[in-house]
Amino acid sequence: MMANLPTVLSLRHLFVLSLALNVSLILRMVYDEQGGNNNKKSMEVYNHNILKSRLVIPSTSFANSTRKDHSGVVDRVIKLDHGDPTMYERFWRQMGDRSTIVIPGWASMSYFSDGSSICWFLEPEFAKEVVRLHNVVGNAVTQGRHVVVGTGSSQLILAALYALSSPDALEPITVLSAVPYYSSYPSMVDYQKSGLYKWGGDAESFDKEVPYIELVTSPNNPDGYSRQTVVNRNQGLLIHDLAYYWPQYTPIVSASDYDLTLFTLSKSTGHAGMRIGWALVKDREVAKKMTKFIELNTIGVSKDSQLRAAKVLKTISDSSQDEESFFKYSYKIMEQRWKLLRAVVESGDLFSLPKFTSAFCTFFNQELEPQPAFAWLKCEGDIEDCESFLRGHKILTRGGRAFGDSPKYVRLSLLDTDENFMLLLDRLSTIQH
Amino acid sequence: MMANLPTVLSLRHLFVLSLALNVSLILRMVYDEQGGNNNKKSMEVYNHNILKSRLVIPSTSFANSTRKDHSGVVDRVIKLDHGDPTMYERFWRQMGDRSTIVIPGWASMSYFSDGSSICWFLEPEFAKEVVRLHNVVGNAVTQGRHVVVGTGSSQLILAALYALSSPDALEPITVLSAVPYYSSYPSMVDYQKSGLYKWGGDAESFDKEVPYIELVTSPNNPDGYSRQTVVNRNQGLLIHDLAYYWPQYTPIVSASDYDLTLFTLSKSTGHAGMRIGWALVKDREVAKKMTKFIELNTIGVSKDSQLRAAKVLKTISDSSQDEESFFKYSYKIMEQRWKLLRAVVESGDLFSLPKFTSAFCTFFNQELEPQPAFAWLKCEGDIEDCESFLRGHKILTRGGRAFGDSPKYVRLSLLDTDENFMLLLDRLSTIQH
Repeated sequence: MMANLPTVLSLRHLFVLSLALNVSLILRMVYDEQGGNNNKKSMEVYNHNILKSRLVIPSTSFANSTRKDHSGVVDRVIKLDHGDPTMYERFWRQMGDRSTIVIPGWASMSYFSDGSSICWFLEPEFAKEVVRLHNVVGNAVTQGRHVVVGTGSSQLILAALYALSSPDALEPITVLSAVPYYSSYPSMVDYQKSGLYKWGGDAESFDKEVPYIELVTSPNNPDGYSRQTVVNRNQGLLIHDLAYYWPQYTPIVSASDYDLTLFTLSKSTGHAGMRIGWALVKDREVAKKMTKFIELNTIGVSKDSQLRAAKVLKTISDSSQDEESFFKYSYKIMEQRWKLLRAVVESGDLFSLPKFTSAFCTFFNQELEPQPAFAWLKCEGDIEDCESFLRGHKILTRGGRAFGDSPKYVRLSLLDTDENFMLLLDRLSTIQH
Repeated sequence: MMANLPTVLSLRHLFVLSLALNVSLILRMVYDEQGGNNNKKSMEVYNHNILKSRLVIPSTSFANSTRKDHSGVVDRVIKLDHGDPTMYERFWRQMGDRSTIVIPGWASMSYFSDGSSICWFLEPEFAKEVVRLHNVVGNAVTQGRHVVVGTGSSQLILAALYALSSPDALEPITVLSAVPYYSSYPSMVDYQKSGLYKWGGDAESFDKEVPYIELVTSPNNPDGYSRQTVVNRNQGLLIHDLAYYWPQYTPIVSASDYDLTLFTLSKSTGHAGMRIGWALVKDREVAKKMTKFIELNTIGVSKDSQLRAAKVLKTISDSSQDEESFFKYSYKIMEQRWKLLRAVVESGDLFSLPKFTSAFCTFFNQELEPQPAFAWLKCEGDIEDCESFLRGHKILTRGGRAFGDSPKYVRLSLLDTDENFMLLLDRLSTIQH
């Protein structure tokens, strides 16, 4: 009878069976460690949801992979080298029409949004919802700040470098960030071979007495730790990249209050495809120069995405007190993913993860631990090149060298689909046992 | 009785009366010159539409200007220094729901669009409609080309400079364009002080034996003439900026067939606020490098705007054979605007306009004259600074110096609202008489 079943179907069944076995193993370990009953229900619900969603939702990706090679998902490469935040899609599906936007063909045709704003291409509705969300979450001071919108926060980093550097300087200003830094910083800074600024590498080892710009990413990408400035000298200019300073990733300890702070929709709400980021800028002249950069670079920022972003932020603020609020929902997923991941990692000796200390979160009103969007995983023992090692097990990650650090580390995204996350657990578990 | 009417109302009436008088003057002149009856009906219809729309549509701008200063629209500054294509809004309003787009909150969340394309953030639907529209219009060969989408064609110009230059070259490559060139080229090329490329000025006076990139804008911004390459040497690399190569502006004489060609929605359909442009690229490696630039610059291009752009392009292609097709509609407006403008300019000695020769348009299947999006107006006689002169009459334009040319010239946008265009005619007429 078994032999008569189509190969694809039986492989899929086998896979689900193997995963179910593994997951129950993981759950048992979590219990043993914590000795508690508290997490049992949520875990079971989560597990149930995962299995349900895996059987229902990913029919296309399943179909694709099995169509390509009859060995099925077991051989499928899982790509966790990017931080594509597809995890959030299910929440927005559940919200139904609440964040749907309708744009008629004649709307928003002009280059201009608001002639009275320093940032002339900024949609007032978007600016309003940005300020409102910061007030709801409590993660940034918005008073006395100019909002500058960008095509993702990538464009805003370049705009900030342009605004903080001087065309008359004899030497390009040095741009620093402490290791491990966001892997794209070096190429973003240097790809144009600009005479205004140049990449200077690790902020920790910077010993020259020259002007510099320090990029402070907090919580940090890749390792998730909260960060302060490192160099702390008079000639230092600062860009605070707070893409991950949201309650699902880290306790909100206070409202950030810096000169130039960057946020992005990609990591806060999961809408990476919109390419919308924003800067909160204290100095009027810096805001003007950033606006000028974006004018020369792309003559403004998509109105359609700004309007859609406004709607998405509004939906989050409107429902922030609901039982199924965006941040509660996403906090829960991150919490459960980190618990499962730690359980798998701690069941063997091959890998290790960063340890975080808890802090009081003013948003959730309780003591909480960070649960970053990326896992900064270390290969222990003899494995020198963790990225290659995991690639051999069909897990694509980004190796430590790209972040200025040892190749014993890799960064892997925890914002992917449930299916890919469970495959990750399954493979890490298989490698260790 | 008159004295009892509110000031605002009576001023508005006076203004409409004055315009009507001027327009009838203009119409009479057009007749005298052409001696024909052919244009009478369309002119009257146009005139009627303008007055109707002016009385109905611009209630807000009227209200604003009269509220601000009780002298009313007579004193209002008209801004024609940018090429904001607001003229097209009425067409898209008339199309009703045909180009409306609905985007649910969960859609297009990923960074990625199409893993199989060189340009991994290109929405397949947008690429399909780009190719289709070029086939409908006949203005570009798409076979054997890679489509690269950009945040407006500005970003694509930078992407092309990046792709065509070499990081290993000893000197930055020289970027040229023949005078008068698009006023933004020099600052777009030089604002980052890139070591890859640098602005070299007028292509006509280029005499160095070094590698170069020539920007060929055809029809040209600001003067509207069709252009060919100027330098024509072996080491030359070419970027063809065909933003205005559409039937409403110039006869489509053949399908363009270059190595690297740029188009943009801003000028073709009037959707400047979307920030969507595209490149047709012959060489696979150049397309890859352009994609890499956009990845480092903005990690892709707004999915929302790409989807909306696809819908807009589809609407145009679907209705290309209709009586009220987009290109027929916009051709007619441009034709009428140029006739009115020429009539006003030719009624005095103060100004002159470029003269164009007609050519056979394969799209409209008849011999037609160019009718550019900008008027390249020359102040005759003693007026040396045409921009200042017109500013004195509350008409904002961009002076010739910005385009590398004499200050006796100005560029003024003919893509603004009917109201502003009629005010322009009124003022130019008043200046001359």
